[in-house]
Amino acid sequence: MKPYFLEDFGNPSSLHEPGDVASRALEKARRDVARFINAGEAKEIIFTSGATESNNLALIGYAMRNRKKGRHVIISEIEHISIHNIAKYLQKQGFEISKVPVDYTGKVRLEKLQERLREDTILISIQHANNEIGTIQPIREISNMAQEHGIAFHVDAVAAEGLVPIDVQAGGIDLLTLSSNDIYGPRGAGALYIKQGVRVNPIIIGGGQERGLRSGTEDIASIVGFGKAARVIMERMPEEPSRLEKLRDYLIDNILSHIPKAYLNGHPTDRLPNNAHFRFDWIEGESILVNLKTLGVAVSTGSACSSKTLQASHTLISLGLLHEEAHGSLEVTLGRWTTREEIDAFLEILPGVISRLRSLSPLTKMEELKE
Amino acid sequence: MKPYFLEDFGNPSSLHEPGDVASRALEKARRDVARFINAGEAKEIIFTSGATESNNLALIGYAMRNRKKGRHVIISEIEHISIHNIAKYLQKQGFEISKVPVDYTGKVRLEKLQERLREDTILISIQHANNEIGTIQPIREISNMAQEHGIAFHVDAVAAEGLVPIDVQAGGIDLLTLSSNDIYGPRGAGALYIKQGVRVNPIIIGGGQERGLRSGTEDIASIVGFGKAARVIMERMPEEPSRLEKLRDYLIDNILSHIPKAYLNGHPTDRLPNNAHFRFDWIEGESILVNLKTLGVAVSTGSACSSKTLQASHTLISLGLLHEEAHGSLEVTLGRWTTREEIDAFLEILPGVISRLRSLSPLTKMEELKE
Repeated sequence: MKPYFLEDFGNPSSLHEPGDVASRALEKARRDVARFINAGEAKEIIFTSGATESNNLALIGYAMRNRKKGRHVIISEIEHISIHNIAKYLQKQGFEISKVPVDYTGKVRLEKLQERLREDTILISIQHANNEIGTIQPIREISNMAQEHGIAFHVDAVAAEGLVPIDVQAGGIDLLTLSSNDIYGPRGAGALYIKQGVRVNPIIIGGGQERGLRSGTEDIASIVGFGKAARVIMERMPEEPSRLEKLRDYLIDNILSHIPKAYLNGHPTDRLPNNAHFRFDWIEGESILVNLKTLGVAVSTGSACSSKTLQASHTLISLGLLHEEAHGSLEVTLGRWTTREEIDAFLEILPGVISRLRSLSPLTKMEELKE
Repeated sequence: MKPYFLEDFGNPSSLHEPGDVASRALEKARRDVARFINAGEAKEIIFTSGATESNNLALIGYAMRNRKKGRHVIISEIEHISIHNIAKYLQKQGFEISKVPVDYTGKVRLEKLQERLREDTILISIQHANNEIGTIQPIREISNMAQEHGIAFHVDAVAAEGLVPIDVQAGGIDLLTLSSNDIYGPRGAGALYIKQGVRVNPIIIGGGQERGLRSGTEDIASIVGFGKAARVIMERMPEEPSRLEKLRDYLIDNILSHIPKAYLNGHPTDRLPNNAHFRFDWIEGESILVNLKTLGVAVSTGSACSSKTLQASHTLISLGLLHEEAHGSLEVTLGRWTTREEIDAFLEILPGVISRLRSLSPLTKMEELKE
């Protein structure tokens, strides 16, 4: 990225020399990102400022462009907060939104999806994998349903990218959201895959960059970083997910066997290799988090991507968890630099934190009285 | 910016430790940008991905939020292409757009603006200075008119920022667009100043970042770079514009006195200190550009911010220039690193390029036959 900050800061849309350098870098990144998801053509990739914008372009852009075909859109109950809020916006614009429930493991219930299909359904938006509990969705089964009824299919692949193989052609996907920072690239870059022939309206209007679908001078440095991150992750795909999976299973097995009243949220096997999501009876996730923070460990509870609220995660509630169960949950994600030693250190600390918190919890006392 | 790429990549909306560091950096940048334009409060600054997005948020966001008050919006004929295209979009949404003409120097004709004010006018959008010809607009006179009629006033300050003092309070400005890269900051960051009490709808919907007005995980590195660029430019404001102005006048005087049939486009005095914009009879700006490019000089013709078209600039046509005059125009902008020596080198090269091109031009021959 560095040269694009320091030297080659041309505008890819202008005629003069630095512009040509920027333009070539932009198109190289586009090819890399296309290859990462096996897009048929590089021009099917539209660069945006990030995943949230891509989701807006996909849902609002597609719905507004195709509203004459119908005004019904289907999402799942456990989509990312941005999809839920975009759906609310579409409702205000006269669209009807149906939400498909998930089962206790977080899998979209296909028979419920089937029931919600209507004559005027124009779009289904389902995430590739869940950003909180890591459950992976049956993308091909959903796209078969969509294709059978001539409905466009959008996939938010932000949580899944780099962790499970993504193939827009084999997956039968029409629109797919990617972010750069979720594959260790810089922030400030994302992409929307738009299958050739699928039409969307732009949501940011201006000088006509990105085939008129996303105006604004391109943030070349971030896009170059995104392309590079895609190349690096492709090289690592043969080994990294299975390395993470082993560590994850080691972590899960240890926690479930050494901490009483600890449970795994999400799917036991169809889950992201970097995701472990627990709940512990009688305590608050926030207290665990604050305690771990003083010990130097960063984990999540609630939903990291929305603003600083202490509301129970809509995803966990959709699984059928009680509010207190959702609040007692803890998400642990592993990364490229996570080692077995770090997991061992975490496993040293966690049981003590849990049992100390339980000894202070009024819920524990109530349970003890019951027993 | 570097630490925010390499270390502190927390999410400002999440509860864990790196998030706090990111959050502090974000708010520091917000204060710096607020100070740069003398905003009353830091929270009046909303960070976006860049100027085009800020213009979208200002015009679409304000118009959609306030459409019950009226559906008439006024812009000038020489606004940036993004404003023109956003205006077209608003027309499709049922708004009426009036365009105020400019005089031969590029100044908005205030009496024409007055004539266009209506009962249902809700918004006036005029740039602080023009991005092509550098003409500076009478911002305070326009805001007086707007305030008298209870109309919101948006200013696209992208071309002016860092070159003329910007004061949203003294200027009576309700909404103001800034970009980072136009003050030597990184791309991928921009801001919209939204005066307290002014209401806009978001155009990117999601997790509720930026007070719900711009969702998406913040691009901390770029925003930190933007804040730093604002601080640096504030330090330089006492000297840099007058340094540029001297160089610009030296360049203009030399070209007008040494090249026959050369003219200055734009205003003779109320122009950006870094902007010189010429036209040369009988030749194409593109040919000058291509010739200069082979000699290592980057200049602009047409409009650098829109896509690679060879259409005549709408700004130059609005001044009253003929198409061939617009095509014979050349924009020279000076920057922080432009030296007197470079201008001398340019002045060495340019007359030769112009006279060589003229000797090849069919227009020259036609003119010679006339004489």
